[in-house]
Amino acid sequence: MQPDQQFLRIPGPTPVPPSVQRAMNQPMIGHRDQETKDLLHRIKPKLKPVFGTEQDVLIIAGSGTAGLETAVVNAVHPGDEVLVIVTGAFGDRFVQICNEHQIETHRFDIEWGEAVKPELIADYLRQHTGIKAVFATFCETSTGVLNPVKELADVIHKQSDTLFIVDGVSAIGGADVKMDDWGIDILITGSQKAMMLPPGLTFAVVSERAWQVIETNDRPSFYFNLTKYRKQLENDATPFTPAVSLLFGLKQVLALFEEEGLDTVFARHERMKNMTRAAFRALNIPLLTTDQAASPTVTAVRPDDFDPDALRNELKKEFNMTVAGGQQHLKGHIFRIGHMGYCSPADILQVIGIIEVALNKIGKTVKLGTGVGAAQEMMLSGGI
Amino acid sequence: MQPDQQFLRIPGPTPVPPSVQRAMNQPMIGHRDQETKDLLHRIKPKLKPVFGTEQDVLIIAGSGTAGLETAVVNAVHPGDEVLVIVTGAFGDRFVQICNEHQIETHRFDIEWGEAVKPELIADYLRQHTGIKAVFATFCETSTGVLNPVKELADVIHKQSDTLFIVDGVSAIGGADVKMDDWGIDILITGSQKAMMLPPGLTFAVVSERAWQVIETNDRPSFYFNLTKYRKQLENDATPFTPAVSLLFGLKQVLALFEEEGLDTVFARHERMKNMTRAAFRALNIPLLTTDQAASPTVTAVRPDDFDPDALRNELKKEFNMTVAGGQQHLKGHIFRIGHMGYCSPADILQVIGIIEVALNKIGKTVKLGTGVGAAQEMMLSGGI
Repeated sequence: MQPDQQFLRIPGPTPVPPSVQRAMNQPMIGHRDQETKDLLHRIKPKLKPVFGTEQDVLIIAGSGTAGLETAVVNAVHPGDEVLVIVTGAFGDRFVQICNEHQIETHRFDIEWGEAVKPELIADYLRQHTGIKAVFATFCETSTGVLNPVKELADVIHKQSDTLFIVDGVSAIGGADVKMDDWGIDILITGSQKAMMLPPGLTFAVVSERAWQVIETNDRPSFYFNLTKYRKQLENDATPFTPAVSLLFGLKQVLALFEEEGLDTVFARHERMKNMTRAAFRALNIPLLTTDQAASPTVTAVRPDDFDPDALRNELKKEFNMTVAGGQQHLKGHIFRIGHMGYCSPADILQVIGIIEVALNKIGKTVKLGTGVGAAQEMMLSGGI
Repeated sequence: MQPDQQFLRIPGPTPVPPSVQRAMNQPMIGHRDQETKDLLHRIKPKLKPVFGTEQDVLIIAGSGTAGLETAVVNAVHPGDEVLVIVTGAFGDRFVQICNEHQIETHRFDIEWGEAVKPELIADYLRQHTGIKAVFATFCETSTGVLNPVKELADVIHKQSDTLFIVDGVSAIGGADVKMDDWGIDILITGSQKAMMLPPGLTFAVVSERAWQVIETNDRPSFYFNLTKYRKQLENDATPFTPAVSLLFGLKQVLALFEEEGLDTVFARHERMKNMTRAAFRALNIPLLTTDQAASPTVTAVRPDDFDPDALRNELKKEFNMTVAGGQQHLKGHIFRIGHMGYCSPADILQVIGIIEVALNKIGKTVKLGTGVGAAQEMMLSGGI
């Protein structure tokens, strides 16, 4: 390993593109000065297509969890009944936030590693007619599952006036989403995943229907008050001090999205997913999820004949390469490779190449080049 | 290809480590202020082991060619007889510089792709006793040959008081050198190769014997006057404005060398060479040089059934990966991969993986994963 070289392949924070890093190095500006207004004015229209919406995308200084809590406290009143679909650690987090706010929470657990089946939610909502909001996780980062958000929206809106609130944290920017067309009511993400920024920003988009609910909620929180963010953003401003450097970076991220083309961005993520999965299949190392449930941004691998944490330690120690482990009951059973944001097929070849070497070093003999070859084959076939 | 991602794998300029880039971003300081003196004071002792010398390493703002011309104009007088060993484009450059200065130049040409045999030089010097200096290229960047500088020094100093002047531009920092022990009289390098900096600095080290000659040369050049640099550096200063940002970066480069350990740095370069060569051997694609003549910092490949420039174009267009082509009569016949400085075995796996894909795309069918597997095998065997 060479000092100063590291390979960050966890599902966020992700590497930041050099031009974004440079953009963030600009001299500080006053957060009430015209420069900041100009910055927000330029960012506003370019954020919308990333979320598939015509609504303004509200920008809040805070982590992804701040965004999730913002959604909860604005859209739901204490005592309201809600349904939380839990497909992993981040669905679980929505439950914890709802509990914190004395919300009547129905918890719908799905086996970790599987995606939710929309018909199950349709049934549940038919049997529980008082539910005001359904919470789901788009990409469940802890398992690498992409839940069928479009189909969920269909069944939810068929049944009731229930709001549909989606955690898009490790999906938005890497997976296509059509918030308006699909009928998502609140969509949240963070900056440090497929949005290619350091952590520190959370984004919230709200449908017209959700605004009507939020407007009846007169004191959701002082800081997490979405109405304040909406009102200020109409004038290219924020209610509280924005994270200015991250806005400098965001402007450049949006320029990069525009240069590559969003469709190409999403296709690149699909390709990286397919390459990663093909590699582990060729190596006969089991994947946690099915192809159908797999996220384009993160892949969970569930080995049956070696210790994933031994592999992770070897990768870190010998190559300064970081991949993620399992969370909660999957700890010690899986490892997860992030392939989102500033990451390309060439990086996947490198990750797989190094993992093959590291596996042999920890005593799991694999034929060198096998996984890489399968990933290369997937690149060449051009099929995404 | 993702915007903002590029793979620079030419034999210099090479990628700059992030911590070096950050170091160079420090606010400017006055070049006659104490801060600059402190900087040079810290740099001075740490540069010496990189060149294998107890002499001060003189730092001149200029390119590698500026360093070569500095060596010529200081150590040789117009009308003196010198011998230039030409093993490629950079040996040829020494000849051009000598011609420019009306020096009586003997040119000793070696087939490009081969290293010089020291006994040939011994013979030549026995037959031409008036030669005051011999010029050689340590790593001939245009062919990926590492000339046997130690053995050359032995035969040169056995025969005469001839000075031995070495262009170390793509070697120093990547290949071990013992200037004092081997008896090199002037050793030159540039900043943008294995020294991990942007272009803009050239380094010159001078033996006691060479200083005696230089001191008789009262007007070598106003700017390229080594005596001025020596005198000023004794007081931690430079005769002319130094390239201050590059000095900030150099201090950090030397910290990285210290952290990794110079022996490990050199071993890493050997390993990258061996990986690269093993990969092309496994792919049945001919290398330009023999193992014995091969440089640890750059590998030249001479394909016999595809156009190297078609491969280079494909790499650039599809993957934003740059490898070098051939120079002069090797143009269109070879391509060259730089593996020096901020480059690791993981990067070699990536380069080879991408080249295999690109080869298939340009119609040269290779079995995917073959070259990568051979390179991985070389990593695993641990043998450098």
